[in-house]
Amino acid sequence: MSKPIIYHIPVCPFSQRVEILLELKGLRGAVEFRVVDITKPRDPHILELSRGTTALPIMDLGGGRVLKESLVILRYVEEAYRELQIARSDAYERGVERLLIDRAGDFTMAGYLMVMNRDRERIGEKREALLGHYAWLDDFLRHHNPDGTFLFERYGLADLVYTPMFMRFWFLDYYEGFDLPVDPAFARVRRWRDACIAHPAAQQVSYEEIVKLYYDYAAGLGNGALGPGRSRSSFAFDPDWRARPMPPKDKYDRIASDEELGLV
Amino acid sequence: MSKPIIYHIPVCPFSQRVEILLELKGLRGAVEFRVVDITKPRDPHILELSRGTTALPIMDLGGGRVLKESLVILRYVEEAYRELQIARSDAYERGVERLLIDRAGDFTMAGYLMVMNRDRERIGEKREALLGHYAWLDDFLRHHNPDGTFLFERYGLADLVYTPMFMRFWFLDYYEGFDLPVDPAFARVRRWRDACIAHPAAQQVSYEEIVKLYYDYAAGLGNGALGPGRSRSSFAFDPDWRARPMPPKDKYDRIASDEELGLV
Repeated sequence: MSKPIIYHIPVCPFSQRVEILLELKGLRGAVEFRVVDITKPRDPHILELSRGTTALPIMDLGGGRVLKESLVILRYVEEAYRELQIARSDAYERGVERLLIDRAGDFTMAGYLMVMNRDRERIGEKREALLGHYAWLDDFLRHHNPDGTFLFERYGLADLVYTPMFMRFWFLDYYEGFDLPVDPAFARVRRWRDACIAHPAAQQVSYEEIVKLYYDYAAGLGNGALGPGRSRSSFAFDPDWRARPMPPKDKYDRIASDEELGLV
Repeated sequence: MSKPIIYHIPVCPFSQRVEILLELKGLRGAVEFRVVDITKPRDPHILELSRGTTALPIMDLGGGRVLKESLVILRYVEEAYRELQIARSDAYERGVERLLIDRAGDFTMAGYLMVMNRDRERIGEKREALLGHYAWLDDFLRHHNPDGTFLFERYGLADLVYTPMFMRFWFLDYYEGFDLPVDPAFARVRRWRDACIAHPAAQQVSYEEIVKLYYDYAAGLGNGALGPGRSRSSFAFDPDWRARPMPPKDKYDRIASDEELGLV
């Protein structure tokens, strides 16, 4: 059987979850990752695999077997490659792990809504919403593992689900001047967040890469949409992000041009 | 160790899922179910277990170990009692099962929004929303198991997740005059739905019970809230639902009195 293929968008946090999981399992090459250029019409072959939907990632296992939804794909990888189990094995601990994982969607959404906001009047409200999630996470971790770093004694499934999101939220640091307040109320979640970001299995992306590629989100534009005067997405493959300058931070005043972003 | 305890509201569809699962495993007595009267202030002991949240069900495993969220509790029961596995064992099939289970929340919400609607102008919109979910389910089942009845060859985890919802939607039949249209477009999901409702492991509730207990939802009132002129919830334990008359169907015109519902 040929390798499973995951089709994803560049620096997709959902497929980074799978990359981290494979890294932890020592199976880095077991899955092929193919990047989809979301600035172009979708390849008919991929549309056929997904049966018409356009959300990514999707995972092609061959023989007509296709999975969607990042957490479904993640569990598939965990369960199909049993060499080294990363999820907890105790039933109660698996439940606690699931409770934490279940909140990741709303946490992610709060950060994305914050970076995509273009209304100065709503900055405070977005900030409070995200801090509410951090407060919940702090409380959850303090309850289940007050003195530890991760949810359990080692970096595991719930931790790796959040790690790519903590890294994407570098765009909040850069464009919104927002970081977790240095405050005892957030000390537990901060210890966790920092250790997740520093984990050796999670070094697939960098601060600079996130900030440059996600410029369009800071400009309020998602998934390949373009603003006035723009002809290329900040997610474009070419020119490579390394060759581009750091984007301007003044997202509440204007949308930068292709030239200014180094996209032409 | 004493038995785990699940605290739930009467005829809670989420705990019926657990009851069906235990029935399939032949472990009916392994968990104790305790009904919480949502028309009264929450017992401090339960609030302590849940750490302040009021959503039910919660599952107390003893020793400070508490799980919330119906699907988390369901997976716990599946994984803690391994005598007979009900979820699929193949990793890909587990993924397909998860994809179906993941839609159950939105499907449920569409049916509840429909029964709780009090605006005649919006009946068509609610109906279309729910039919959209049925169309998705029909397509999904047709793709994965065109000639079968359940998602796979036998009644399993995804099927039992939906079964209590199909039964709750009896309130749509009674109060909204809504059933799945007899139409080839819904033939596959209808076959599934009917077989789920008829499954011997899923006979914990009856049509009459659902219709009587959920009257308050049909009147647009959720979880113990009371309408004008009402002093008792239709979810009250006493008088027993068997002793009450069938409620009036004219939900768009008025809210029935306690007397008319047999609640006093």
